[in-house]
Formats: sequence, C-alpha cells, structure tokens
Amino acid sequence: MPRRAAQAVNAQIELELTQGRGGKTHFEAVLALAGRLRQGYASVLHADPADVALTGSTTDGVNTVISGLDLRAGDEVLTSDEEHPGVLAPLGRAREQHGVNVRVVPFAEIAGEIKPSTRLVACSHVSWVGGKVVDVEAIRSTGVPLLLDGAQALGAIPVDVHALGCDYYAGPGQKWLCGPEGSGSLYVKRERLEELTIPWPAYGSVADAERALEFEAREGAARFDHGFPPGIRSAWALAALEVLEGAGWAIVHDRATALAAFLENLLAEAGIDVAPRGNSTLVSWASADPEGDVPRLLEAGMILRNIPSRGLVRASVGAWSDPDELTRLAELVTKRPG
Amino acid sequence: MPRRAAQAVNAQIELELTQGRGGKTHFEAVLALAGRLRQGYASVLHADPADVALTGSTTDGVNTVISGLDLRAGDEVLTSDEEHPGVLAPLGRAREQHGVNVRVVPFAEIAGEIKPSTRLVACSHVSWVGGKVVDVEAIRSTGVPLLLDGAQALGAIPVDVHALGCDYYAGPGQKWLCGPEGSGSLYVKRERLEELTIPWPAYGSVADAERALEFEAREGAARFDHGFPPGIRSAWALAALEVLEGAGWAIVHDRATALAAFLENLLAEAGIDVAPRGNSTLVSWASADPEGDVPRLLEAGMILRNIPSRGLVRASVGAWSDPDELTRLAELVTKRPG
Repeated sequence: MPRRAAQAVNAQIELELTQGRGGKTHFEAVLALAGRLRQGYASVLHADPADVALTGSTTDGVNTVISGLDLRAGDEVLTSDEEHPGVLAPLGRAREQHGVNVRVVPFAEIAGEIKPSTRLVACSHVSWVGGKVVDVEAIRSTGVPLLLDGAQALGAIPVDVHALGCDYYAGPGQKWLCGPEGSGSLYVKRERLEELTIPWPAYGSVADAERALEFEAREGAARFDHGFPPGIRSAWALAALEVLEGAGWAIVHDRATALAAFLENLLAEAGIDVAPRGNSTLVSWASADPEGDVPRLLEAGMILRNIPSRGLVRASVGAWSDPDELTRLAELVTKRPG
Repeated sequence: MPRRAAQAVNAQIELELTQGRGGKTHFEAVLALAGRLRQGYASVLHADPADVALTGSTTDGVNTVISGLDLRAGDEVLTSDEEHPGVLAPLGRAREQHGVNVRVVPFAEIAGEIKPSTRLVACSHVSWVGGKVVDVEAIRSTGVPLLLDGAQALGAIPVDVHALGCDYYAGPGQKWLCGPEGSGSLYVKRERLEELTIPWPAYGSVADAERALEFEAREGAARFDHGFPPGIRSAWALAALEVLEGAGWAIVHDRATALAAFLENLLAEAGIDVAPRGNSTLVSWASADPEGDVPRLLEAGMILRNIPSRGLVRASVGAWSDPDELTRLAELVTKRPG
C-alpha cells in the first residue's frame, strides 16, 4: 500500500466524518472520484473510459462476461489448466446451470485447441501458476472472442487492449495497481457491448433509474459497474495509480520484469527448478515442501505463497522489490533447513 | 459515520500500510474480521451466522435471489409500485432475459394479489417512498416465498427474520447500520439454501478452491458472499455496529421511530400533506417543488432527498436526530419562500 494512498483514505474518511455522507454534494463528489478512477483504469488499459467498468474484483469482470453472454447447453468455452478459481468458479456455474461445455487444455496449447464450436476463450493473460504469458496473437488469429483474466498482468506488464485485440479484459485493482481490496475493472470492446446482457444490475446500470423495470441500459461499459463506487475505494485506488504513473509506467514494468528475471537466474544458477515463465513479474519454483517453505520464508521477512497442488512456491516481484532482497531470497531458498 | 468507525478505519489502514497486505497473517486477520462482521449482521437480523452472507449492497442480495432462483418464462414475481431501482433493475433483467412475468401491484395490496402461479414476492420491508411497513404476516399466510428488501428497515426498526418468517432478507450496511458504502448482508432461510444456485461465484463460494470447476458449494449462506471481504470495510462496519449495540438496539429503534412520528405530527399539524407511513423512520410529504426544496433545505443544514416522480420530499430520522432539529425542519418546510 503506497503511503500516499493511506493519506488519501484518511482524508476521505475525515471528509465523510465531518461532512456526512448524505445529500447531493457527497454523491456528486463520490461519483466524480469514480469518474476519475474510470479514466485512470482506462489509461492503464490504453482504452477509452467509455469501454471500462468499475468492478469489485477480477472475478466480478469474469462473472459479468460469462454470465452476460447468452451461453447455452453445448456451447463450448475453452480454458486452460492454469486458471485461478476466479475464472473456474464462474465457468463451473455456467456448466452446472446452463450445460455449457467447459474444455480445459494446456495453457500453451489454447490457440491450437480452438474449434468452430468454441464460443469463447477464457484464460489468464499471465498464468498465476508460474508467470507464463499467453500467446494472444495466436488465439486472436482464430477470430474467437477472447476474455483475458488480467489478475497477474494489469499493472505488472504493459497492457494495451487494442494492441492485444481482446474482446474483454478483467483486471484487479488490489494487486499490481496497489489499490484497495474490492477494486477492479472490466474492459469491453465497443463492438461487443450490446451482445452482453447486464447480469448484475443496480441503480446505475440503467439509463433511467425511474424506469428501472424497463431495463434500458446505461450508455457504455459503465452499465457493468458493480454497485455504488465507494469514496474511500476510489480515493485509495486513484492515489495508488498516481504513485505508479508518477514513477513512470515504462520504468515500473521494466524494473519489475527485469528483477523477476534476475531472481529466476539466481535460482536457476543455484540448481533450483524454476517453473516455465514468460516476461512477467512472477517466479515459481519446485519445492518438496511448498507449504512448509512459505512460513519459513515469512519468518525471514519474505512474503510468498505456494500454488496448491502444483508443488510450487511463488514470488511476486514488484518494481518496489530490490536486488539485495531477491539475492537474500534466493539464498534462503537454496539453503534448505536441516 | 460514527467517530469510532473512522478510528477503526484509520487503525486498519495503518496496519495494512505498515504490515502489508500479503501472506497468511493478513488474510487470516481479514477473514477473522469478516467472520465477526457476519456474526454482527446475524445478531441484528436475529439469525444464525451460517444463514448470513456478506454482500456489497442490498441490491447484491436481491440479485443473488432473483438470479439464483431458476426463474423461467411465465413464472410470476409479484412486486409493488413503491420499489427502489435496486429491486426493479434485477426484476427487469429477469423479465428481459428469462421472460419472467413481473407484476406490479399497490404496496398495500400485495398479499391479496398473490396467485397460485406466483413463484416469489419481492418487495420492501419498509417502503422507501413514504415509510409504510409491508404486511408481512398477510403475505406469509399464503406460503409463497418472500424476499424482503430491508434497505429502509435493517437497523432502523427491529428485524427478526424468524418472527417475520421471510425466506430471504437483503439488507444494506451503509444506511441505518452506519457502515461503509459497499457493505450489506443477505439472510437465506436454511430450508431455501439448496434451492438457490450461486449466481456470482468467487474464490470463497466453493467448498474446495482447488476444484473450483467442479463447483461444489461452500457450506452455509457464506457461499453467497460477494467477493473477498475488504479489511477496511469490516473494520468500519463492526465499529459502527458496536456503537449502535452499545447504545442499545431497543433505544435506537424506539428513539428513531418516536422522533419520526414527532416530525410527522409537527408537519400534519401545520397542514402539510404527509404521505401514508408506518412505524418506521421515514417521513415524506407532498411538495409543489420537491427538487427545489432539497437544495433550499440543504442551505439550512438539513440533508433530505426528494422521491422522483412522486412529488415528495423525504426525511430520514435517526436515533441521532434531536427534537429541536426536527422542529426547525418542520418550520422550514411550513414557511415556504416568497
């Protein structure tokens, strides 16, 4: 959490405490903050703010697409064997409720597995397992609609939704953008907007709240906004974006990916079995006891996680990491206890 | 916003800033806070915590029920002519997407309008228009499943879901419970739990996140939790509940409803046309210019709202209101400008 974000939350709290949270002034101010946040996310995505929804999580964005498409029995959704529960749970629901055929193939083979019956590809931009980057170009060449889960990508590596050519991009706010828990974004390609129903509508989803039952959609992707945008959420998220923008996105991305590659090399040179990865900010390695390694490394001040069922320990390397810290981590990993 | 809630948010922010938000310690602490919040909401609802989900809004709860029931073309949902867009938008979606028949009847006549084909009654516990309280007993006597929108009830008047006998109760966190924007709860009657699919699944919705695609539901109503429960949200909501509990719920409810009745009497005695209301905390009255009245009253320090298309101005009277303030409000309303 950036210190500036903490200051922004404290200032917003002081405002809400002393000025109250009722009335037009408060609502207009909070909606203005939300508008600025939409612009902020759009800037990171290289998208038009009109194509960006404010969500509470990557999973919200995935649910919006999976649930908003009119998927039916026998429709195929192609996904990979390296997806997070935030993608798999919504797909599980589509399978259970609508009889959608969810086909799971190896992460590196998605493009080659696309069939004429595939209605949607739903997969990670960067795999949370080991940091591989999906071959977007190969998938796009098939013309099948593509939903990217950007949980380990947005803010970590450059994301340009137009250059990627994806149809939907679900991003987190609380990870690589250093925003609060309960924040995120969803990009929807302009041409796809009207194909999606609004699966989780609220006051702000409709063009005219006084005729909400008629359910005429609000303009743009804001119709998919997930509930009322809390003031403290926007204040934190915006301040964090400003810190990262202030540092310069190119520097943030280059430094993080270079440091991750640095860690990968240190581990590989020490004979550690590093999992296949791409130009990302994640580094995972094989361990005989991943669940034991995590608390052991935590004692040394290193916050890592294990990837369940994979025998892996994973490091998330940020622009805020430094080489000494990573060197020490590699030493700790190499020198096993006993 | 209670001052103690501001202190709780600031303390949580300081913790996240200095201790970080990664690793087991943080997640366990945040999940423990969420568990306490679930107990807190359950206590206000007089429900078992196992039957309570943590949502982001009343609307989330309404969407969970409307979307989680397997409503089909021709099924009838009965609602009233005094519902908020937070109920009407989800019903509009069900009509548009599944051909559900949404029938709108006068608020006071719901029970008498229930037919054998009615699959669900979805209406306010307390009408947001003028503060009428719905006749729950009359509706329940028909045996039709009942979803109550508690946006103007939970925290304002006593709510006991077992005494009410409702099947689903969607409540807000940010209104009468003085919690943060983006908070709320959903009660689901134990016997109804397995009838609902999980319409918006996330990491925590499934029993085993490692097999999320198999989509085996987590135990209890927590399967409907809406996303990861942010630490600052729980900290604020819990501190606010403690303030209200500390004052004593009976005192909070009695004082608020008595003060609302006091305002109603002042206005009625001055010849103002007060809208029909029940034993609630809302007081609405007819105005020739409701949209002009609201900013005029704001200048005098009174935060009110108008109810669009109804020609009404509405006051929300809390236990924190005082008689002098309400007397001054009645004077301002009575002495129109000019």
